[in-house]
Formats: sequence, C-alpha cells, structure tokens
Amino acid sequence: MTEHKKVSSVVIRRLPRYYRYLGDLLSNGVTRISSKDLSNFMNVTASQIRQDFNCFGGFGQQGYGYNVEYLYNEISGILGIQKGRTMIIVGTGNLGMSIAGYANFKKRGFTIVGLFDHNPDLYGKVVSGVEIMPITQLQEFLERKSVDIAVLTMPKESVQEILPYIKGRVKGIWNFSHKEILSDDGLAVENVHLSDSLMTLSCKIGRIELEKNKKKDK
Amino acid sequence: MTEHKKVSSVVIRRLPRYYRYLGDLLSNGVTRISSKDLSNFMNVTASQIRQDFNCFGGFGQQGYGYNVEYLYNEISGILGIQKGRTMIIVGTGNLGMSIAGYANFKKRGFTIVGLFDHNPDLYGKVVSGVEIMPITQLQEFLERKSVDIAVLTMPKESVQEILPYIKGRVKGIWNFSHKEILSDDGLAVENVHLSDSLMTLSCKIGRIELEKNKKKDK
Repeated sequence: MTEHKKVSSVVIRRLPRYYRYLGDLLSNGVTRISSKDLSNFMNVTASQIRQDFNCFGGFGQQGYGYNVEYLYNEISGILGIQKGRTMIIVGTGNLGMSIAGYANFKKRGFTIVGLFDHNPDLYGKVVSGVEIMPITQLQEFLERKSVDIAVLTMPKESVQEILPYIKGRVKGIWNFSHKEILSDDGLAVENVHLSDSLMTLSCKIGRIELEKNKKKDK
Repeated sequence: MTEHKKVSSVVIRRLPRYYRYLGDLLSNGVTRISSKDLSNFMNVTASQIRQDFNCFGGFGQQGYGYNVEYLYNEISGILGIQKGRTMIIVGTGNLGMSIAGYANFKKRGFTIVGLFDHNPDLYGKVVSGVEIMPITQLQEFLERKSVDIAVLTMPKESVQEILPYIKGRVKGIWNFSHKEILSDDGLAVENVHLSDSLMTLSCKIGRIELEKNKKKDK
C-alpha cells in the first residue's frame, strides 16, 4: 500500500506538481514517458525525478520509461486525493468565494460542507450548493458534523476567536489569514502567504534589471 | 549596495518569510534578536538562519544578536520592496478582486494601475480606485503605460490570447491561471498553484491518520 511507505516531506512538497503534469500527460493520451522527456517538460533534472520516484517504488525501465498512469495513481494515493475530504470555509470574502467556486477541488474529492462569515448580508446566500451561515454557528456545526479541513480566509484579527474550537475538531487547517498557525501532533497546517510569491517575483525582476544594466555598462 | 550581492535563489525563496517575521518584531518594538530566539520564533534551525543571513552580510554579534531593523531593511532591499512596481490584474473574478483589494501590496510599493476583464457587466466598475476595462483594450494600454507586473487571474484557456502581447511589455508575470508559463531571459515568472498547497495538506493529514491508526493497533 502506497500510504505505508515513508516519503520525505521535501519530496511530498514536489508531488503536487508531478501530479499535475502526469494528469496533463494522461489526458493527452500519453501512456509512457522517459525521465528525460519528463525532465524537459517539468524543468527539473532527470536525476531529481528518478530519485523522487524511487522513494515510492516508481521505477522506470531502461529504454521503456515510466508508466504514466501507474505513477499518477501512486502519487494520487500518497497525496490523499479521492479520499473524500470535507471542508468548511470560514470567511466568504473574495478569496473564500474563489476557493468555494473552484470546481477542481470537488473533482479531487474535496467537498465543501459549510461556509461561514461575520457579515449578516451574506447569511443564507447559496454558493456552490452550500449556504453561508453566521460564524457564531461554527462551534455547534463542528460538534454536529465531521469536518476534515477548515479553510481560513478571514482577517488575522478574527482567527484567535475561532481557533480554540476549530483545533481538536478538524484534522487540518488551510490557513490564508496571515496569522501563522503551528501544526502539532494531531493537526496538520498549511499556512499560505500569497504575498511571499509576489515578493519573490519582485526580487527576480530586480535581478533581471541588474543584468540588463550591467550589459549596458559594458 | 545590497542589490549587487549574489544571493542564491533558494535563499531568496526564504526571504519573504524572514521579512514578515522581522516586520512583526519591528512593529512590536524589538530591536535586537539572537539567532536562537529567531530560530524558535520561525521554526527554522539557528544554523540555517546564520547561513542565510551571512549571504548578504547580516552578521550577528556574539552575545548581542541581530539588529532587527538593519536585517529588515537589507531584506526589503533584496526583495525590491518599496521600488515602486506597477501592476495590472487580468481577470477580475473573485481571486483577482481579492488581490486588487489587498491593502498590504500598496503599502509595500505595488500599485495597481489597470484592471481587465472579459465580462461587459464589469466594465467601468471601480475597484481600489481603478476602473475595470475590457480585455480588448489591454494591448493598447500596455503600449501607452509602463507596467512592471501582469497578474493573471483568468482561466487557463484565455491566457494564450493575451500572452503574446504581454511578453516583452512587462517585466514579470504573477500567474494564477493554471497555464504554466516559463520564465526567460527578460521575463520573471511566478506560477502559483493554490491547489498544490491543499494537496500537501491532505497528504499531511493522511500521515497523521496513519500514525493514529498505528498507535491504536499497538
């Protein structure tokens, strides 16, 4: 069973990208691929790919390459896709709504079962088949329903209020609130800071500008 | 000058996080911090922190620690914050609107100068002081105005149309469209796949469940 194999957390962080690429290949009817072609396609060295896939027994064959569907299914298993995870979204501003409306999550087995907000104007509004409820009903909801993942798309300031009764009731927090939450033994956390990626982009632009100026100076 | 120093791209990817933490410390009035305290605070080893900061001359002093403001300013310089970058957002659905409304970007010197969409119902609507324009006016806009960054928050299918005239006109693309765009010599790209982080979370949950089941079996 895939899930019983040990895969390092560094490799795990690369798996979603492999998963996306292999999915693209599959839907284009590609059944086999060499690590060299996959490497060109993904802009990762072939040796890195071989190393990563070896972690979970995805051995390619010399002159034959990798079986795309096998790899796709193995990675899908490790990532827990199709396990059927339930999610609630707390904070139904633009970002929350964008996540609620993203059809691909549902396709991968992530089902939204509750939407919560502070804003009374939104109560009762139905998004993707789910009604927006007052955040004051969150605690009672979590006692009644089994929820795997809480998506926090609310302001930093409001997180402190709800964190105590979310912890212990959900298995994971997908946190966009800018309030860093630490994972612990029984709770998985992914803290997302969109602005980090904008800062990195800005830094890359700075380096390109620098190179251009150097060339001019010569 | 900070920007003339060579900093590896691996370190660059960690800088936004340091930048956030040091900013928090500054606004809490902390002026000095030891690598040990910073390490506890950030959940990174002290030796990693020392290595990273040494890259750009941020040497701490034995028994004294790091000067928080100095480090913050150095990192801010490397990240190109406060350089004054102009941005356009192409695709004003929920995700685009969420980025347009995020006040912190403006504080860090990223100014939105144009919003574009396909949907005629949105034309003329003003968001954060900027009017939504038809996407058909994008090319003419880029010829007229200097734009540093194009934020693509539109569906994959629509990217192909606009990519030819965005490339060469902007310095960087912040890409949320699920259509992988490659950086090249004159163009910086950050491809963002929000779902990668959800898959990673799901995977972490799976490992926690596994540990729990193992304990039960004992």
